[in-house]
Amino acid sequence: MKKMIKNGTIITATETFNADVLIDNGKVTAIGLDLPSAGMEVIDAKGCYLFPGGIDPHTHLEMPFGGTVSKDDFESGTIAAAFGGTTTIIDFCLTNKGEPLKKAIQTWHAKSKDKAVIDYGFHLMIGEINERVLAEIPQVIEEEGITSFKVFMAYKNVLQADDETLFRTLVMAKKHGALVMVHAENGDVIDYLTKEALAAGNTDPIYHALTRPPEIEGEATGRACLLAGLAESQLYVVHVTCAEAVDKIAEARNKGFTVYGETCPQYLVLDQSALEKPDFEGAKYVWSPPLREKKHQQALWNALKSGQLQTVGSDQCSFDFNGQKDLGKGDFTKIPNGGPFIEDRFSVLFSEGVKKGRINVNEFVDIVSTRSAKLFGLFPQKGTIAVGSDADIVIFDPEIERTISVNSHHMAVDYNAFEGLKVTGEPVSVLSRGEFVIRDKQFVGKPGMGNYLRRGKHVQLSNRAKVEALQ
Amino acid sequence: MKKMIKNGTIITATETFNADVLIDNGKVTAIGLDLPSAGMEVIDAKGCYLFPGGIDPHTHLEMPFGGTVSKDDFESGTIAAAFGGTTTIIDFCLTNKGEPLKKAIQTWHAKSKDKAVIDYGFHLMIGEINERVLAEIPQVIEEEGITSFKVFMAYKNVLQADDETLFRTLVMAKKHGALVMVHAENGDVIDYLTKEALAAGNTDPIYHALTRPPEIEGEATGRACLLAGLAESQLYVVHVTCAEAVDKIAEARNKGFTVYGETCPQYLVLDQSALEKPDFEGAKYVWSPPLREKKHQQALWNALKSGQLQTVGSDQCSFDFNGQKDLGKGDFTKIPNGGPFIEDRFSVLFSEGVKKGRINVNEFVDIVSTRSAKLFGLFPQKGTIAVGSDADIVIFDPEIERTISVNSHHMAVDYNAFEGLKVTGEPVSVLSRGEFVIRDKQFVGKPGMGNYLRRGKHVQLSNRAKVEALQ
Amino acid sequence: MKKMIKNGTIITATETFNADVLIDNGKVTAIGLDLPSAGMEVIDAKGCYLFPGGIDPHTHLEMPFGGTVSKDDFESGTIAAAFGGTTTIIDFCLTNKGEPLKKAIQTWHAKSKDKAVIDYGFHLMIGEINERVLAEIPQVIEEEGITSFKVFMAYKNVLQADDETLFRTLVMAKKHGALVMVHAENGDVIDYLTKEALAAGNTDPIYHALTRPPEIEGEATGRACLLAGLAESQLYVVHVTCAEAVDKIAEARNKGFTVYGETCPQYLVLDQSALEKPDFEGAKYVWSPPLREKKHQQALWNALKSGQLQTVGSDQCSFDFNGQKDLGKGDFTKIPNGGPFIEDRFSVLFSEGVKKGRINVNEFVDIVSTRSAKLFGLFPQKGTIAVGSDADIVIFDPEIERTISVNSHHMAVDYNAFEGLKVTGEPVSVLSRGEFVIRDKQFVGKPGMGNYLRRGKHVQLSNRAKVEALQ
Amino acid sequence: MKKMIKNGTIITATETFNADVLIDNGKVTAIGLDLPSAGMEVIDAKGCYLFPGGIDPHTHLEMPFGGTVSKDDFESGTIAAAFGGTTTIIDFCLTNKGEPLKKAIQTWHAKSKDKAVIDYGFHLMIGEINERVLAEIPQVIEEEGITSFKVFMAYKNVLQADDETLFRTLVMAKKHGALVMVHAENGDVIDYLTKEALAAGNTDPIYHALTRPPEIEGEATGRACLLAGLAESQLYVVHVTCAEAVDKIAEARNKGFTVYGETCPQYLVLDQSALEKPDFEGAKYVWSPPLREKKHQQALWNALKSGQLQTVGSDQCSFDFNGQKDLGKGDFTKIPNGGPFIEDRFSVLFSEGVKKGRINVNEFVDIVSTRSAKLFGLFPQKGTIAVGSDADIVIFDPEIERTISVNSHHMAVDYNAFEGLKVTGEPVSVLSRGEFVIRDKQFVGKPGMGNYLRRGKHVQLSNRAKVEALQ
Repeated sequence: MKKMIKNGTIITATETFNADVLIDNGKVTAIGLDLPSAGMEVIDAKGCYLFPGGIDPHTHLEMPFGGTVSKDDFESGTIAAAFGGTTTIIDFCLTNKGEPLKKAIQTWHAKSKDKAVIDYGFHLMIGEINERVLAEIPQVIEEEGITSFKVFMAYKNVLQADDETLFRTLVMAKKHGALVMVHAENGDVIDYLTKEALAAGNTDPIYHALTRPPEIEGEATGRACLLAGLAESQLYVVHVTCAEAVDKIAEARNKGFTVYGETCPQYLVLDQSALEKPDFEGAKYVWSPPLREKKHQQALWNALKSGQLQTVGSDQCSFDFNGQKDLGKGDFTKIPNGGPFIEDRFSVLFSEGVKKGRINVNEFVDIVSTRSAKLFGLFPQKGTIAVGSDADIVIFDPEIERTISVNSHHMAVDYNAFEGLKVTGEPVSVLSRGEFVIRDKQFVGKPGMGNYLRRGKHVQLSNRAKVEALQ
Repeated sequence: MKKMIKNGTIITATETFNADVLIDNGKVTAIGLDLPSAGMEVIDAKGCYLFPGGIDPHTHLEMPFGGTVSKDDFESGTIAAAFGGTTTIIDFCLTNKGEPLKKAIQTWHAKSKDKAVIDYGFHLMIGEINERVLAEIPQVIEEEGITSFKVFMAYKNVLQADDETLFRTLVMAKKHGALVMVHAENGDVIDYLTKEALAAGNTDPIYHALTRPPEIEGEATGRACLLAGLAESQLYVVHVTCAEAVDKIAEARNKGFTVYGETCPQYLVLDQSALEKPDFEGAKYVWSPPLREKKHQQALWNALKSGQLQTVGSDQCSFDFNGQKDLGKGDFTKIPNGGPFIEDRFSVLFSEGVKKGRINVNEFVDIVSTRSAKLFGLFPQKGTIAVGSDADIVIFDPEIERTISVNSHHMAVDYNAFEGLKVTGEPVSVLSRGEFVIRDKQFVGKPGMGNYLRRGKHVQLSNRAKVEALQ
Repeated sequence: MKKMIKNGTIITATETFNADVLIDNGKVTAIGLDLPSAGMEVIDAKGCYLFPGGIDPHTHLEMPFGGTVSKDDFESGTIAAAFGGTTTIIDFCLTNKGEPLKKAIQTWHAKSKDKAVIDYGFHLMIGEINERVLAEIPQVIEEEGITSFKVFMAYKNVLQADDETLFRTLVMAKKHGALVMVHAENGDVIDYLTKEALAAGNTDPIYHALTRPPEIEGEATGRACLLAGLAESQLYVVHVTCAEAVDKIAEARNKGFTVYGETCPQYLVLDQSALEKPDFEGAKYVWSPPLREKKHQQALWNALKSGQLQTVGSDQCSFDFNGQKDLGKGDFTKIPNGGPFIEDRFSVLFSEGVKKGRINVNEFVDIVSTRSAKLFGLFPQKGTIAVGSDADIVIFDPEIERTISVNSHHMAVDYNAFEGLKVTGEPVSVLSRGEFVIRDKQFVGKPGMGNYLRRGKHVQLSNRAKVEALQ
Repeated sequence: MKKMIKNGTIITATETFNADVLIDNGKVTAIGLDLPSAGMEVIDAKGCYLFPGGIDPHTHLEMPFGGTVSKDDFESGTIAAAFGGTTTIIDFCLTNKGEPLKKAIQTWHAKSKDKAVIDYGFHLMIGEINERVLAEIPQVIEEEGITSFKVFMAYKNVLQADDETLFRTLVMAKKHGALVMVHAENGDVIDYLTKEALAAGNTDPIYHALTRPPEIEGEATGRACLLAGLAESQLYVVHVTCAEAVDKIAEARNKGFTVYGETCPQYLVLDQSALEKPDFEGAKYVWSPPLREKKHQQALWNALKSGQLQTVGSDQCSFDFNGQKDLGKGDFTKIPNGGPFIEDRFSVLFSEGVKKGRINVNEFVDIVSTRSAKLFGLFPQKGTIAVGSDADIVIFDPEIERTISVNSHHMAVDYNAFEGLKVTGEPVSVLSRGEFVIRDKQFVGKPGMGNYLRRGKHVQLSNRAKVEALQ
């Protein structure tokens, strides 16, 4: 049955206007004033915003890390995402050196396909470049629709790739129309500082931050940008946390390099002092790059406002405080890196960004949804409310006031990093391809209803009109 | 009668999609697939893009300058604009020191109201700040809907204001929700270099460029940005021409200052060598700031792409070569400053920008229309194709190839600065508030059909939903 | 009678070594190990450094300001300078618009010639450029040996010159081999902020600092540097106080511009909080540019260390707290601008710089003496201990610990801005052209023994060998 | 017998003056006017400059590279150096992974001790950091007086060290008072670009330059500077060639980091086009980093002038064109990297720098001699003409005009990279510790007369007075 959403205020990356939205067969087919709704299911969105569903470009569900596995899987993780207003995620598929890329992808399909309640895609990690990998990549792009590849400049002797691997990945991406993602920290320096800290008996969570100073994120970011420019390729820097890294991205963009940057809600509202909480509670705030001193928050907001950073991802990678984070008692290097953000990303950005006047509501949509769709080959299927697009729509009450808490969240973990944060605005109902996943704040979907997304190339032809990428 | 545009591809600053557009009473009222069109005038836009009408934020029609008056008035100028795809202009209203601001505004109303064929607004020049001016400004904002004010840092002893005037204008603008525009060149240095050039017998048109080097545009731009930041106000730098100025704007924006920049098509495709054309033809290319060396073009394109510059205005201020420009034979300082660009701005940006892959088609719309609407208090009435907005629509054939020439242009002047430039794409029909101004490349409007636009504040409440400015 | 200084450690801008120094007829004529001293006056400098006499490039003795006159004149001022280790000063000669430059110079000669106890020269203020001034300047250079000219970018309606005056002064300086000095603050903005502060009832001394923020010093500094580069001339920025200004100077120097910068001891060790002292004591710390927040000190030290700033001047311009500074009670704009630093400049820089490890002892000599000699056409007559140079020598005990205080200083004013500062090191004896001015911490000279110095051009030929300027 | 040099003009890093110089037992013991010379050997230096002997901080004599050995050994190399006005060299001692550092040092002692005609020291390469190396380093400093250590960021799989090695070397250097030197190019990128070039059949010498673009020198330089700042250590960047690297050094220095930079005469006067000479002659100009486009020369001169670069080394590493360079015919990667510059460094810098007005003669001395002495623990024994210093003196005729050529040079190789360059100025006689090595342009020394120099720490106490390093 067709659906008609009445009385809402549609917000896109450009527009804000009142109109009815007609949904037919999972797609938006008309937007207009006083559209006829006879025979349709009519949804009243009075007083609410209609946002395109959030797109979270950065999640790690059920991911192995340091001998444990991140707590939220594709079921709990995507349900929490939907509660939070997110209707698409792109999860990182980790590969192992010496093994076929496809083996890793199969593992990720197995984790996700009967569990996800919203649509999802995969990024693929590149840990090595050799003839086999170079041969597999075009197949992965073609067959799996995986068009973004991630390289780690940190986690020495584990995930870290050298500059030649990064550079060759960039060259490959240019050739095949893919986007290279990079975790930018200088892993060599971290490795040394970490060993020195432990040797000196500095084992508390705060040393996680102190051994990964912002300068080395700036250094690695600048290096990656330079290599991208030299390769005339395209680069997306994940989880930018500090002024130093923002400066490098801005500098590269001003030179005309195709470089994008993502930050995360945790870097916008939390700071390094959280790692000093007593009773090992600092471990709840251990992830990489670490939280920074408060002054960096303004640099991140400025960069979102001026367009030097384009997206806000969650970097969801949750671990229980009890039973997982506590593996690192007495040795901060053994604390699993990551935190639970998939659910609150959307609302925290709305409340801290729009409500506090740092960005406007159209910029919010761009940051939380549209740009990720464009950058990662999902637009215009995803990322907007427009005729022809998937009816991924969030009915959002912009005035509800509430407090974020582990007691009310839907993630599987035993704490919330934003515990106690007061936010304004909440998703009331969430539709994925025209079907309710959340209705009146209740989960009404079912595991497996999310589809795997084969994504287009970084610069692609859509089936309707020529659509170029954000660049 | 309602109109229905069928078969076109709608392009907004965000979207590209195929849909029908319903126009009722001058407004867009529905956008959808296969909308019923019985009883309507149906317009077939097959193979065409539907663009929101261009907004030209920078024109000087029938403006007195150096003892003469710019050739195109509100009739010929707006007709040419319409042919080129522009449906809104904002013209600069010049004031005289010691006279009421309103007197100048009345003069501008008198010039425009029975002549304009498209909608128009005014910016107001501020040449002095004193108690009278400070008292008038809120009235001008309230009564006239003029919410942008321009200060000149050049034209010593004529238009030039000192830094205190600029700073006080910025303080005033912050208080009243206006946007300050600045012509940024160091007029003191220009004045000296000009006198020295003449004294040395250097009277040819090229000396116009050589006595206004890019460094002093950079200097003045940086100074204006700094004052804007200090005043916590908002600034729009008109006609940015060079890398030096771009760098200053980028630096200010990265610090979180509210600074915007505009460039013009002439700076994107022409260069300083044009001023060296023989037989005094260089005079055709004399305007301020002057054309620059070719290398600056890349800096401007990069800045449009990375978002550090937001708009492209025409800076239309046309003078005949014969009878006006030739006033400066033997003394380049007597050449009337300005050129004819109002007609070709839109197509040159499309052809050189979109067709040559420098920007994508959505960015084009943002630059040529949407951002000006948002910055100057016209959005969402103008600047997009959306339900509720004015039906200012350009039906644009993106594949037509043609050559720009004085022989085919519609401006009143005797030369075209882009003479011989091959461009791809042309407006076929142009609607203003749902009425054809241009139909199948013929002018079908009539003088006086354009409305004066009372504009909103720089950050405004629309009558439908909260709409914040671009910032 | 010849003099021989034995057992001292000679320190120059390059060297540190132990040797005897032979002085004959006011000049150093030999430096060596175990030089024969029969028939000479032998001075034992055991345990002491022998420094070239300090050169203070920035003093305002007996200068009219705001209805009063700076307290220290050429007698008390130069006696205090000598006590402090300074054997040469260059004082600023103020001119009046509309009057011949020579009239001002005559006034300054009259103030100084029977009073000075050490050698002295003059800089000349340029407040206007016109045909008369342009004609006088080469005469002033030739006849008076005045080869440095100062332009004020602040003090609106009093001393402030416009950019054209600054630019023309730079052009003139290039032509005639002079150095342009600039007081770099944006006077227009200051003027407005000052009026606003008073209008708001903000009359306390701290508002002197708050109405002259560092950003506008940075702006004016950058502007002056740009104009200097454009004119291909040479510029010396006096009293640099903040990171913003340092950055602009560094940027200009890195581009190859001939730009130098001076800071003052007060900016290196005091900060803005001093202006908040109760009971109007903040007025003791009112001068322009104002003291800054503490963080700027590090930027200044870094710039001295890296060579981006070259000199430390005193900007001596002393006023009594009682009877002069108190003119500004109830209106900070009426506080005479200036402070007493001529005596402590040398020792404060030694103690805070060398003793605290920020600069080494040779850099100290370069900063406190040699570079000023080279920049202002006094080298090699002044500025070093070398064969053929004037025997201006400070016998300095580097280990004495003492506390700066009005109770022990020799300036004529009733307070000391460094009151209570503990310093290490003190001049024991001071020779000017081989004659003792200070001997064993007692003044043994007499007024009038100081000579007026005709200075060489910015790049000059000495009478012995080709000596180029610092550049 | 004592020597007395009469009638010369002594030039130091600070002074220029006429005086006699007394030399006793290899040291300067007096400098003065009309010193008595009875019973001494009197040397007439009329019309000549007396320079402190040049110090070349960067040579590779008899160094194995790519299957061959650099042609000039410690005999021919130091003779050529002396002819050129250089009296001290510091040669790079290469180490092998897995072998004791001392074994390498012994090898270098064996190469040099009976051959050198001037004094010499060693830098030591660090290719790995482990417990053995960390234990050896303090011994090397103490016993061998080797206080500078070099890390390579290029030559992948051969000399290249990773960032952890560089960082740990910096940490070690801080602890022990040593200076870390770095060859800054991103070897990973070079390795890839080189392989790609060969795969594409691009085998000519010019591809040596094209596969090592300046951007990656800038990147590596910035990375090394950042690590130095983070370690609060000291860094010396060898052979800086381009604007990108200069910018990074300037940025670091402006932040207060202890970073120094060296360039070489070849980068100041030759450019990349030399690699395109026909008949494989481009191979004569193959060294690393490569020659750059001409525009970079100005950036290097500016940096020398503004003090952002401190020294000019030769990077002497000569190979015959016939028999060595030609190993790379058909494969540019097999061309031995290096060129012959030890002899002409001094004169080229004097002629191109001083005579062409880019630097003055005191800056020349600082760059060519004094600063290297200070940075590398040789001052004041070496690096100046002062009482107590070694009598390493160059008697230099500043007016001789001559043309550099293989036909007249004294290096052992079959070509001169500066062939045909006209220079003004030539060393006439050269003394090392008071003994003539070159007298009236004839070699009068003998192999083995050069002493090995145990050098002081980066910040050291001399035996006469406290002397701090340049920093």
